[in-house]
Amino acid sequence: MEAVGFIGLGRMGLPMAANLVAAGFTVRVWNRTKGKAPPGAVECRSPREVAEQSAIVATMVADDAALERVTFGEDGLLSGLRRGGIHVSMSTISVALSRRLREAHQAAGQGYVSAPVFGRPEAAQKKQLWIVCGGEQKDLASCERLFAALGRGTFTVDEAPQANVVKLTGNFLIAATIESAGQATALAEKAGLDPRKVMDFFAGTMFASTAFTGYAARVATTEFEPAGFAMPLALKDMTLALQAGQEVRAPLPFASLIRDRLLTALARGRDSWDWSGLASVAREDAGLPPRRT
Amino acid sequence: MEAVGFIGLGRMGLPMAANLVAAGFTVRVWNRTKGKAPPGAVECRSPREVAEQSAIVATMVADDAALERVTFGEDGLLSGLRRGGIHVSMSTISVALSRRLREAHQAAGQGYVSAPVFGRPEAAQKKQLWIVCGGEQKDLASCERLFAALGRGTFTVDEAPQANVVKLTGNFLIAATIESAGQATALAEKAGLDPRKVMDFFAGTMFASTAFTGYAARVATTEFEPAGFAMPLALKDMTLALQAGQEVRAPLPFASLIRDRLLTALARGRDSWDWSGLASVAREDAGLPPRRT
Amino acid sequence: MEAVGFIGLGRMGLPMAANLVAAGFTVRVWNRTKGKAPPGAVECRSPREVAEQSAIVATMVADDAALERVTFGEDGLLSGLRRGGIHVSMSTISVALSRRLREAHQAAGQGYVSAPVFGRPEAAQKKQLWIVCGGEQKDLASCERLFAALGRGTFTVDEAPQANVVKLTGNFLIAATIESAGQATALAEKAGLDPRKVMDFFAGTMFASTAFTGYAARVATTEFEPAGFAMPLALKDMTLALQAGQEVRAPLPFASLIRDRLLTALARGRDSWDWSGLASVAREDAGLPPRRT
Amino acid sequence: MEAVGFIGLGRMGLPMAANLVAAGFTVRVWNRTKGKAPPGAVECRSPREVAEQSAIVATMVADDAALERVTFGEDGLLSGLRRGGIHVSMSTISVALSRRLREAHQAAGQGYVSAPVFGRPEAAQKKQLWIVCGGEQKDLASCERLFAALGRGTFTVDEAPQANVVKLTGNFLIAATIESAGQATALAEKAGLDPRKVMDFFAGTMFASTAFTGYAARVATTEFEPAGFAMPLALKDMTLALQAGQEVRAPLPFASLIRDRLLTALARGRDSWDWSGLASVAREDAGLPPRRT
Repeated sequence: MEAVGFIGLGRMGLPMAANLVAAGFTVRVWNRTKGKAPPGAVECRSPREVAEQSAIVATMVADDAALERVTFGEDGLLSGLRRGGIHVSMSTISVALSRRLREAHQAAGQGYVSAPVFGRPEAAQKKQLWIVCGGEQKDLASCERLFAALGRGTFTVDEAPQANVVKLTGNFLIAATIESAGQATALAEKAGLDPRKVMDFFAGTMFASTAFTGYAARVATTEFEPAGFAMPLALKDMTLALQAGQEVRAPLPFASLIRDRLLTALARGRDSWDWSGLASVAREDAGLPPRRT
Repeated sequence: MEAVGFIGLGRMGLPMAANLVAAGFTVRVWNRTKGKAPPGAVECRSPREVAEQSAIVATMVADDAALERVTFGEDGLLSGLRRGGIHVSMSTISVALSRRLREAHQAAGQGYVSAPVFGRPEAAQKKQLWIVCGGEQKDLASCERLFAALGRGTFTVDEAPQANVVKLTGNFLIAATIESAGQATALAEKAGLDPRKVMDFFAGTMFASTAFTGYAARVATTEFEPAGFAMPLALKDMTLALQAGQEVRAPLPFASLIRDRLLTALARGRDSWDWSGLASVAREDAGLPPRRT
Repeated sequence: MEAVGFIGLGRMGLPMAANLVAAGFTVRVWNRTKGKAPPGAVECRSPREVAEQSAIVATMVADDAALERVTFGEDGLLSGLRRGGIHVSMSTISVALSRRLREAHQAAGQGYVSAPVFGRPEAAQKKQLWIVCGGEQKDLASCERLFAALGRGTFTVDEAPQANVVKLTGNFLIAATIESAGQATALAEKAGLDPRKVMDFFAGTMFASTAFTGYAARVATTEFEPAGFAMPLALKDMTLALQAGQEVRAPLPFASLIRDRLLTALARGRDSWDWSGLASVAREDAGLPPRRT
Repeated sequence: MEAVGFIGLGRMGLPMAANLVAAGFTVRVWNRTKGKAPPGAVECRSPREVAEQSAIVATMVADDAALERVTFGEDGLLSGLRRGGIHVSMSTISVALSRRLREAHQAAGQGYVSAPVFGRPEAAQKKQLWIVCGGEQKDLASCERLFAALGRGTFTVDEAPQANVVKLTGNFLIAATIESAGQATALAEKAGLDPRKVMDFFAGTMFASTAFTGYAARVATTEFEPAGFAMPLALKDMTLALQAGQEVRAPLPFASLIRDRLLTALARGRDSWDWSGLASVAREDAGLPPRRT
């Protein structure tokens, strides 16, 4: 069976690597903190070592800086990957870094596929991720079995960095959903309505999407902890979305407002809250306590 | 069979009145422009005449001013409705007017039920409206058969004016969905992606709600005409939502931004466009033409 | 000496009426609360009585509703003013009401001059107001001595309602100055700077205007009480500015944001604060207490 | 006389270097493009060579990237400056880079003074700049004669990077002034007023600051070319201001909106316009042409 590598064994990466093992791949892994390898996977001493022994290496790390380190750093995967080997970048990173990665791997005769995912850790575990992928046709073809082992479907775009644009656009749409629900429930609550019933009504009629139903419920109940996706990560993603817009000169005024709100939430010390806690600021702006009491 | 009245035979009111006839009610109607009564309904000469002969009178008119005229005006329904008769106000009106109507009908010994609806004309025709209703328990009970003849479900709130808050909140959420989709597609298109494919992906995965799928498709294809719900009506509703927020001191910054956008669209002469055309401004802000060519 | 009337003896109106007496006019006054007439002025029993005995009647009242009452109400000045008499409206009112007043007075063969003023009560006392005036040429000419007794200069526009647009535009610019200073000082304070020194530097160099120096000092010291111009009045004016924009389809996104901020300040119970307290919300958004401690 | 260095001979740097020569300093200069040295200054082959022969080296370059190159690059000034030598950074740069420069120079036993300036090229020529400076007491003392030769006054802050915060705050306040004037004039023009007269009135009364009078006139006349300070530089500065806010968790919603506006102006191809052209977007949002015709 094919040898693949997996770098980054956090809340998303760990179940994903485990799914690759379960699907029969020979899996080599590396993580900054040791001892996290899922049963059946082989832990390597560096990203480079992973890359030297794998035809395809997937990365799932925290941010641009982490991906730059594991790729371009000493003992990074760029230096280990063979000619024709493929780096599958699945983290939520900047469009600019995606472009730079493509160039670097091309220059090294390697393939680069951008494949960020939608889904929370539970979805990763259940192979229910949606994968947005872009890259050379032949590289994408080589990744098919890997994607099949991780998610329930793919959406393919022409250019690798465009996959990152789609990912950031999706996170923008979710954040806008949260913020809209926050403002709507603040109004409802101030008008004497039960915000949970109101959101349930909308979620049961015109807004019966997974994005709306899940987040609107959290917003209405103000259950902002524990975090599924924490505030600082949301701030990172809104900043990346705004940068992506700046690159192509497309303003995103809702993202600007959401970014400002996240800063306020963080200025108030809510670093450990879920990004649905964005709604706490809309509540306070209406004179309500950040959470229902 | 019970005698009901229906005032306002526009794109929404006409199919609703027809459904009441079909459900077996004796229906008396009035409309500013004559000759619009659906088969089986009796056209009266004034709202007052409708009210004099009906236990329940539903109104479905354009705006606050129209509802004030047919209710408080000369030969208005307030002067015709018997003691114990019920005014069911189904238009999208201000919370303030809803409150005033309740007081006036109470003072006259009449019932007042606020029952705005969600759904486009096609939904009205197919009895697929969602009805948000508030009022005295006994008045709501009296309206049950009428609601059953018009929609597929009701959401009941404690106080009549709160039903109007829910309606305005819902329209705010739809407008925020349109605006979010507009910004997202502008970014996608500037990044070289096919916005229809991107929106189809989202609509097929995390955003599979009727609100998102319908409007995101219109936004992505830029099919802004003919209008299902025209720009000036959207501006009216955002203004009412902002007023509702101002009354209870709950700011709605997304609604503020959407209102500003609608003004721009109207300043550019798009009075006849559907409110999904809101997205044209996000497109132009990114340097794109208002519609794909 | 000419007989003039003055209606509204609040914090602005009282010193203005006193200045008219001092300038030698025969002054008849009316105020909702009795016993406020300045020495030398004659108190009348109704706006109508004032109007019956005056060639020119100036009004300086709280808002649209108050001006409608004293003009169109029973015993209002419209019914008392002789043909050729002039109503000089000096309050900050809506453009729509200004238009309606012009029509009503024209229909009655009376003159209408719109003449809102810039300046706080101290400026009113010292005859230091700036007066923006619009109306028929001959009516403006008739008001010259009255304006000279109240202010230090006039700015004349073509149409009476345009004077109200200029007034609302000016208040918008002041509010934008306050809000800008609020955001700037929040940033400075969070960065460890002394916001008073920073604002003093700007006020002493590029921003040495009376609007900036006065408000930036209040913002930096967070001395938001007592109110020179209270929050609810600021909210009224921003709402009027936004309405003026809506009429001509000109969005004012800064005014939208300021209006939202004022709602938040009021939702937090700051009704008695000066509008410079707008800055308290920018402070709290940065995690600072509303006032320096 | 003291030997000083000057790096960066653009529209600001050239007159500044000339003023140092005129003040009697021995001036060594370097610029990316050769042959720009003012009469009396000695052109060197690298920033390092400048630094090797100067007690103090001032830098005035385009942006972070340029300053990183001349400081940290091969033959950069960091490698040439003697122990105890001082780098005076006068460009508008990020707070983060200012912090990094301080650390690097401290580690090398060198002094670092942050001293960004307010003023256009004409002000630079006339020694009319305002200089905001921060650094070690003894280093600031060493720079006194240099500052006296360049500007008309200094504003001293405690820490070097705070000087950059003040500079970015000032540019934010100017941009907010431009944007406010843009919205105000769009409203005035749509209401039939002459925007120049309205802005002249405000500039002559409550807003008689150099920042307002200069920019409001440009906005009202829509003379957006040639650029004194071009759009892309304004975008850079708003981005830096937002980053400075993000670092300390202080949102700047006006800066967010201005940034979005600048993106729109650039998406419409206005790269060569002055930043007062920001107002063109407010005009278009109100349905007016970008410039008066």
